[in-house]
Amino acid sequence: MNDKFSGKFIALDGPDGCGKTTQTKLLSQWLKQQGVDVITFREPGGTAIGEKIRQILLNPEHLNMSTSVEVLLYMAARVQLWTEKITPALKENKCIILDRWLSSTCAYQGHAGGFGIDNVIKLATDCLERPWPDLTIILDVDLKTAAQRLNRDLDRMEQKGDGYHQKVRQGFLKLAKERDDFVVIDAAEDIKTIHKKVIEIVENTC
Amino acid sequence: MNDKFSGKFIALDGPDGCGKTTQTKLLSQWLKQQGVDVITFREPGGTAIGEKIRQILLNPEHLNMSTSVEVLLYMAARVQLWTEKITPALKENKCIILDRWLSSTCAYQGHAGGFGIDNVIKLATDCLERPWPDLTIILDVDLKTAAQRLNRDLDRMEQKGDGYHQKVRQGFLKLAKERDDFVVIDAAEDIKTIHKKVIEIVENTC
Repeated sequence: MNDKFSGKFIALDGPDGCGKTTQTKLLSQWLKQQGVDVITFREPGGTAIGEKIRQILLNPEHLNMSTSVEVLLYMAARVQLWTEKITPALKENKCIILDRWLSSTCAYQGHAGGFGIDNVIKLATDCLERPWPDLTIILDVDLKTAAQRLNRDLDRMEQKGDGYHQKVRQGFLKLAKERDDFVVIDAAEDIKTIHKKVIEIVENTC
Repeated sequence: MNDKFSGKFIALDGPDGCGKTTQTKLLSQWLKQQGVDVITFREPGGTAIGEKIRQILLNPEHLNMSTSVEVLLYMAARVQLWTEKITPALKENKCIILDRWLSSTCAYQGHAGGFGIDNVIKLATDCLERPWPDLTIILDVDLKTAAQRLNRDLDRMEQKGDGYHQKVRQGFLKLAKERDDFVVIDAAEDIKTIHKKVIEIVENTC
């Protein structure tokens, strides 16, 4: 067993189409190859309650959902995941890899949706024992590259249009500038190159 | 058209089995008979999104839902109802009757669940343009009478046991003591007597 990454809590985040899900899988596989006891979750979701909240959030029929409701629902799914799955896993000294976390709510609802990044963080601080991971890697990608990668039916959040998604990207970059525990990667490159960078950051930071 | 109650926002609240739903219907019928343009909603629910949130909240399988998650979900359903239905109805000068409102989250999650009444109110103040109705009528009832009235399969919240429901009742009474816009009725009496009291309060207060 490799203890180097025991109890570490790492999030991969970024705009839709940045490659988070692929990179989360590759990072998890690599950690397992290093003998690390690793567990990954996707957000929103990862619990029975969270997956039902996810269905409400991403349902393309729910066009009139207000930004405050989005914030409350994302936070509800996150608190359930934290309480039910992440806390026990951290107690077992597992390494936790998250596909999205609080940084997404900051960038989407906080910055692009106008709820305010600070207001999102305030709510998270009230509801979560530990709002921030040890390390958050932001996969930064331009809109054109991201759109080419999203070659499927888009969910409600993905359908919000270029203006919104441009702001989402800016929100991630703004937050990353303000936080020492964030690292930004240029995610317009190919999968292998990005994976190498992710490993390098994880090895050097954790 | 009777304008006396135009734009008024009235909530009926209290422990499970207190008769809220029956009294909401009777009050609404009486107001209609007086020529009032009235609309009623139940909480959580009243919107497509809110009804889906209701299903998650009341599902008896979701035994491991944390109190914080309950608060966030109830608030999400409430904000959606406020934005999508109540705000436009108030603009049309309708009289709004609510079957449960913020007082429920204060009594259940805030007091009985340990989240804190003040913390619930703080969150509501951050998320809702107007957290409190013009008038909240609390139908107060002892546990034994309430249990006799709940002659059906109980939902997740109703299944929480006597200790919890005793605290819920105390939570409603505590909140009512602190607020000038609350009136408490003894709801152990028969339906007609309670209905008369409700009308008297609404007529004298609004």
